[in-house]
Amino acid sequence: MSLHVLHYRHEGHARWGVVRNGAITPIPGEFATTAEFIAANPVERLIELDGPTIPESAVQWLPPVSANQQFICQGANYRQHMIESGMDPDAKKFNMLFTKATSCIVPADSPLVKPSNVRFLDYEIELGLVLKKNITSRRTIAEGDLSEYIAGAVIVNDYSARDIQIPQMQFYKGKSFRTFGPVGPYLCLLERSDMAKLGQLELTLTVNGAIRQQDSTANLVYGPAETLTEISGVHDLFVGDLLSTGTPSGCALSVPSPMKQRLAAALSEEAKWKMFMDIQAARPQYLRAGDVVESRIASRDGSIDLGVQRNEVVDEAS
Amino acid sequence: MSLHVLHYRHEGHARWGVVRNGAITPIPGEFATTAEFIAANPVERLIELDGPTIPESAVQWLPPVSANQQFICQGANYRQHMIESGMDPDAKKFNMLFTKATSCIVPADSPLVKPSNVRFLDYEIELGLVLKKNITSRRTIAEGDLSEYIAGAVIVNDYSARDIQIPQMQFYKGKSFRTFGPVGPYLCLLERSDMAKLGQLELTLTVNGAIRQQDSTANLVYGPAETLTEISGVHDLFVGDLLSTGTPSGCALSVPSPMKQRLAAALSEEAKWKMFMDIQAARPQYLRAGDVVESRIASRDGSIDLGVQRNEVVDEAS
Repeated sequence: MSLHVLHYRHEGHARWGVVRNGAITPIPGEFATTAEFIAANPVERLIELDGPTIPESAVQWLPPVSANQQFICQGANYRQHMIESGMDPDAKKFNMLFTKATSCIVPADSPLVKPSNVRFLDYEIELGLVLKKNITSRRTIAEGDLSEYIAGAVIVNDYSARDIQIPQMQFYKGKSFRTFGPVGPYLCLLERSDMAKLGQLELTLTVNGAIRQQDSTANLVYGPAETLTEISGVHDLFVGDLLSTGTPSGCALSVPSPMKQRLAAALSEEAKWKMFMDIQAARPQYLRAGDVVESRIASRDGSIDLGVQRNEVVDEAS
Repeated sequence: MSLHVLHYRHEGHARWGVVRNGAITPIPGEFATTAEFIAANPVERLIELDGPTIPESAVQWLPPVSANQQFICQGANYRQHMIESGMDPDAKKFNMLFTKATSCIVPADSPLVKPSNVRFLDYEIELGLVLKKNITSRRTIAEGDLSEYIAGAVIVNDYSARDIQIPQMQFYKGKSFRTFGPVGPYLCLLERSDMAKLGQLELTLTVNGAIRQQDSTANLVYGPAETLTEISGVHDLFVGDLLSTGTPSGCALSVPSPMKQRLAAALSEEAKWKMFMDIQAARPQYLRAGDVVESRIASRDGSIDLGVQRNEVVDEAS
């Protein structure tokens, strides 16, 4: 049975609690990091937690992933998003990985700050997976093993400055600005029997109430088991680390198809990037101050409901 | 005056010490992270450290940067290396940033493990800067301010699996394999009057005794002050974090010039990457088991000498 937990601040203290029907049952203990929280609170034991509750409305959300953890992202992991990103899904035969700086992690209701030097601010709803176990050597992780490795799921928004991310080639900078990584509100802890549901979650992102992204995790290209298997052969992963699994189509970004890119290849670098910027400038979908982005991920049966992220765009103070 | 410190293991304990003429004066205290060590040991106080010494030969090196810190790298930051990486130095008008997973950090004398799935293993000697101060908001850092922000310098080798890094577009995975980030041996702590020397360091990398890379940090494109200024406007930096400043020319990697890439742009993705792989396969410079890579960074006057990294290439155990 899945269980929704919340990291929150109440009466000046950072705490964790189990959320049921709008009420929080505080979990005893203080945990400095997500790793400490997960290691100390197996879902099987939390399910039995009982006691006095506080109303959800009385607390302030904190991100369920702490800044000490790794924040690893998969790129172009839904077929249609590859196409809008200017990639040929049939030619891309690798699992693209990059990172975001963890200082971009903010609570799910944080304002999204548009940096003064960013023109094209885009959204990317993603399913995030929080790890349960350290992985320090190469291994094969099968679908049936996932419950050993994954503690639970969260909503991630991988906000991106497209005018920095794409022309500068490495995604890290354009995706690491402060406030570009809301996580939460809920961390849904999963039991073994829940793992299959990870592949059946519905993602929906709206801007000012209009749907922009809507898809199912059934359409992920590289799933969690093969992704964790591959990373295990590269570097270490630790309890509490965050793997964000990529975003569906519907972003503001629009990049010419590989065919058109080949036709435009005779252009100078300068002309090529001017063309890119001109295409983006014509896209009204890019975020502006005052826009409100809402992100939801849930299973159809409602047994997993990661809550609602709500980020209002504000300009960086000058 | 600069001061060379070493992180080492001796009689089962991890310690730090000041190194002078092959002897180590242990620094009192235990420090779990680089941040803790730097915060507790300002160079001005360490210079006065005295006491019994142990011979350097009696200790085992540990990396001077701990795995909790950020490992941020600049790409294509020497003009000639841009050219060998297939970029046009006159068209690249940005400071390329990416990260390496910190679990790739190993001592300076660690074996370099060639993963079983990697064909084209390359070396990249780099000057690494270790931070002295948290930076959590946008600010302008002038050359004259560097001593407030930089604690010291280290040798970094940014080992890279070119067959993963380049075709998979995001550098993170191909540069994050375990053992791909030797750091050290020495952390040279710098006083205000030493900062100008950061721009006058000689880098030399040999493979089996033959020089492959040799350049001066005078040829860095984006220097530390403008780089820290830019990152301050993106994300937070913390005491002990590592900024690796890019590598000079001389790597095994060879990528066709932007002109040739434009001519080849009519090729399919598959044909393009086959061409890339064929070019690399003809380069005998790529590392193989048994090769020994040695890296040295020092000032001409010898007042800064970051020591010698020595990594023998071994195949991953099957």
